[in-house]
Amino acid sequence: MKTVKVALAQINPTVGDIDGNVLKICDFITKAKKQNAAIVVFPELAVTGYPPEDLLLKPHFINDNLEALGKIQEETKGISAIVGFVDPVRKLKSDFLFNGVDRNDGIYNAAAIFHDGKLIDVYHKIYLPNYGVFDEYRYFKAGTKSSIYTIDGITFGVNICEDIWYSDGPAKSQAHSGAEIILNINASPYHMGKLHFRAEMLSKRASENKVIIAYLNTVGGQDELVFDGGSLVIDRTGEVIVRCRQFEEELVISDISLDGTTAKNISPKLEAAEEVYKALVLGTRDYVFKNGFKHVVIGLSGGVDSALVASIAVDAIGKDNVTGVFMPSPYTSRESREDAYALAENLGIKMREVQINRIFESYSESLKLEFKDVKEDITEENLQARIRGNLLMAFSNKFRWLVLTTGNKSEMSVGYATLYGDMAGGFAVIKDVPKTLVYSICKWRNSKGKRALIPERVLLKEPTAELKPGQKDTDTLPPYPVLDPILKAYIEDDKSFEEIASMECAKECIKKVINMVDKSEYKRRQSPPGIKITPRAFGRDRRFPITNKYRSY
Amino acid sequence: MKTVKVALAQINPTVGDIDGNVLKICDFITKAKKQNAAIVVFPELAVTGYPPEDLLLKPHFINDNLEALGKIQEETKGISAIVGFVDPVRKLKSDFLFNGVDRNDGIYNAAAIFHDGKLIDVYHKIYLPNYGVFDEYRYFKAGTKSSIYTIDGITFGVNICEDIWYSDGPAKSQAHSGAEIILNINASPYHMGKLHFRAEMLSKRASENKVIIAYLNTVGGQDELVFDGGSLVIDRTGEVIVRCRQFEEELVISDISLDGTTAKNISPKLEAAEEVYKALVLGTRDYVFKNGFKHVVIGLSGGVDSALVASIAVDAIGKDNVTGVFMPSPYTSRESREDAYALAENLGIKMREVQINRIFESYSESLKLEFKDVKEDITEENLQARIRGNLLMAFSNKFRWLVLTTGNKSEMSVGYATLYGDMAGGFAVIKDVPKTLVYSICKWRNSKGKRALIPERVLLKEPTAELKPGQKDTDTLPPYPVLDPILKAYIEDDKSFEEIASMECAKECIKKVINMVDKSEYKRRQSPPGIKITPRAFGRDRRFPITNKYRSY
Repeated sequence: MKTVKVALAQINPTVGDIDGNVLKICDFITKAKKQNAAIVVFPELAVTGYPPEDLLLKPHFINDNLEALGKIQEETKGISAIVGFVDPVRKLKSDFLFNGVDRNDGIYNAAAIFHDGKLIDVYHKIYLPNYGVFDEYRYFKAGTKSSIYTIDGITFGVNICEDIWYSDGPAKSQAHSGAEIILNINASPYHMGKLHFRAEMLSKRASENKVIIAYLNTVGGQDELVFDGGSLVIDRTGEVIVRCRQFEEELVISDISLDGTTAKNISPKLEAAEEVYKALVLGTRDYVFKNGFKHVVIGLSGGVDSALVASIAVDAIGKDNVTGVFMPSPYTSRESREDAYALAENLGIKMREVQINRIFESYSESLKLEFKDVKEDITEENLQARIRGNLLMAFSNKFRWLVLTTGNKSEMSVGYATLYGDMAGGFAVIKDVPKTLVYSICKWRNSKGKRALIPERVLLKEPTAELKPGQKDTDTLPPYPVLDPILKAYIEDDKSFEEIASMECAKECIKKVINMVDKSEYKRRQSPPGIKITPRAFGRDRRFPITNKYRSY
Repeated sequence: MKTVKVALAQINPTVGDIDGNVLKICDFITKAKKQNAAIVVFPELAVTGYPPEDLLLKPHFINDNLEALGKIQEETKGISAIVGFVDPVRKLKSDFLFNGVDRNDGIYNAAAIFHDGKLIDVYHKIYLPNYGVFDEYRYFKAGTKSSIYTIDGITFGVNICEDIWYSDGPAKSQAHSGAEIILNINASPYHMGKLHFRAEMLSKRASENKVIIAYLNTVGGQDELVFDGGSLVIDRTGEVIVRCRQFEEELVISDISLDGTTAKNISPKLEAAEEVYKALVLGTRDYVFKNGFKHVVIGLSGGVDSALVASIAVDAIGKDNVTGVFMPSPYTSRESREDAYALAENLGIKMREVQINRIFESYSESLKLEFKDVKEDITEENLQARIRGNLLMAFSNKFRWLVLTTGNKSEMSVGYATLYGDMAGGFAVIKDVPKTLVYSICKWRNSKGKRALIPERVLLKEPTAELKPGQKDTDTLPPYPVLDPILKAYIEDDKSFEEIASMECAKECIKKVINMVDKSEYKRRQSPPGIKITPRAFGRDRRFPITNKYRSY
């Protein structure tokens, strides 16, 4: 029986950390060699990290990436390896050459195919995604050809990410030319349920071409993106035979049978809430540590959003590295205080407390003359939120703690958040999590411990910003189970007013919601980055003009 | 002598304001007809405004734009007209059809060619820019063919923006097929000196193809972009025969001779500082008014940056619509107060004053316990800046005034600005203006009035943030005449450390500057939008990862 020992190196590189990425790649090559793998596969742009964005416009960055590839090449004696890198336009010589790069020549999103210390070929990605979060036409030229290689009697083809999504793409021609296995390297960002979506597509691609596909994904957080790993091997009938873990770096080695049945090695499937939670944990951990922070600070209000963020932070970087700050005002209820402290105790994190009323009074006093003829309004609510933002930033400046903000997607959508207030901070952990999903995730997290981490009352009480007496979110917003589907239809699915109006909700209510979304773009533009978990997040994923007079109704 | 009367409709549309844009287009068609123009030319995407960004993903937006085009068509009886719009993929029928749009079919950046109430043809842009601020591959399919049309004995070709920049583009084939005049419609964003750059390219294109080129640009501000107009007609020898004004909406009608000499109609050239100043004025005016604001508020420190922003604001929207706020601390000098008030008086704007020391003390008092074992540092400086930010936002919330921020590009580059402090506001007018250019522009503005608007001392004294005793910008930064060329080399020209190190500046100083730029990306990501005036601005123009371990040295 013909088999090939394939090592899937599902690694977590860091954007721009070329030296660190090379060390990691060489380390994984060494491990793969020790386990007698015939070939080790690394992710798309493993050398530079993904996406390097406008670093790609710097010729010296491209040169450094080429030099790094030379070091990797030396490590490939005694094994084959596929490594993602950036290839400037140049003629391929018998061995690797470090030419100076002229940016006008263009660059390719490329895979180096190494065997036993030699560079066999370089593949150039053919299908360049330029939608959603992707800007690949901004940087790359599209490749035009695909090849197959035979090493030790195994014939394989290599292609990159988007290439595998097209029926008529390189996988087809490679399989038809005789490839027995396709090695497809990826940097595929996570959104909810995408793993299933990928597996379905890969199953189709494998079975329609009667070819084995090894799909290797990167893992790790990069600004707003989380790459979830979950690398797969699909046999020629379309069945999943290997599934790596999601959200974890690992080296998975499999003896893949080319003419028989392969023993399955499938990591357990995560349930929906768990998958999102783990994405948020990984995205937070990598943002904090890759940016050189060691400690985070979170304003704890006693509400559900800050409770979830604190819980994620503790799971991401450890309870000793998380501080909560409780900042009560006269409108803060006794319940909120109890819940905030109960949460901190459950999580085992330190708690600080700073009253805001004296500071608020000093603002009121200083502005008294200026505001003497006008009544109280949103200004005073925002001031309270901004005092809290300033206090958290003071902790941040004084102790080099990163402020995690706690706003959810429902609030970010309708602008139910104060710019420079509760929006102030370095990372917006649950920015892309709709409020209804916030609750589901909290319930899942509570179900995982011996006892509920998040006090039950936090999940039961009515949401309020506590910025004026008796305030409830539903004073200005529809209840979240009504709001969230409208937001999804409008923001993620580009539905028109007429299409949304067919949902069970008053037309006036829908108009109001759409209007709030449209009018809040300026706030979102100044928001900290946060983790994408839906098919369309705010940020690079949804590029909307601020100045925009279009109304959908 | 064969002549054609061409009307250049250099209009200022608003993104998303389809109804308003149609009214404006129809109004200009009427004016052109009254003056017996044979053909009237409108900008790229005149119907939707440019760039509509992700509005283009909404099928109902595309449909609304098609319906609008139908209304325009009716107005074209008795004239020819070229109008930029979005064309969904569909078969061209004898008359215009409003089909439902399926977004999967794709859309084109298109020009409608109308004659006497009929749609003659639709041209699809062939070269799609996808660099700098442009994302056209995100939205559009590329056109593949170009045609020529003969109306009343005049043969012409139509193409769009980027198309004209390529020697082998449609202008060549159109000219070779017999076009006597090329109508090229644009939405070309301004940067310093770009008008000259365009004229040179157009002169080459016209002379190499022996064809007249009418280059029509849009005008107006849209978020971070200013479209400067400055539309041109170039004769077949490559000479400029018509130049419209920059930064102004206008209808310019010319009798263009196809076989002889055309009388020249060339608007006066602006000097360099004037050009930038007018770009900033237009960008500010359009951001304020197109977003529905009537009044702006600016923190006046007595420094040069806020002086320039206030002067721009007054020229943009009138002195009655601008309020200055002076917010002294114990570190504020007597000179600063005098200069701030002198400026306000020169500009004729109202001035408010709010002391910040009592508020600052209330923060210190509230944080005393928390910070008891640590010494004063940047935290206290940032708190002062944030109190000022909060006060300006309070005025904004209370009176619906837009806050204009006053940071310049040198500061934004190195992070010499406080997030949620002096960076707090809706629009960052001089965000892309290096400090050295701030001075030049102020001097130019002062030279234009009967007396200096900006007090001379403001231009002479040493820059300081006045956040601690005796503070000077040069405590932490190299002098601006040294700093600005380093920043340009690194940020705009993608120079490596070695290339920059050949400039006259200590290597350690260059490393420090590069490091400051790299480390400040998180701040810039939360900055308000501001007007692009250099070839590479922060914002959509420079897309940098925050999480980024690459170091150029």
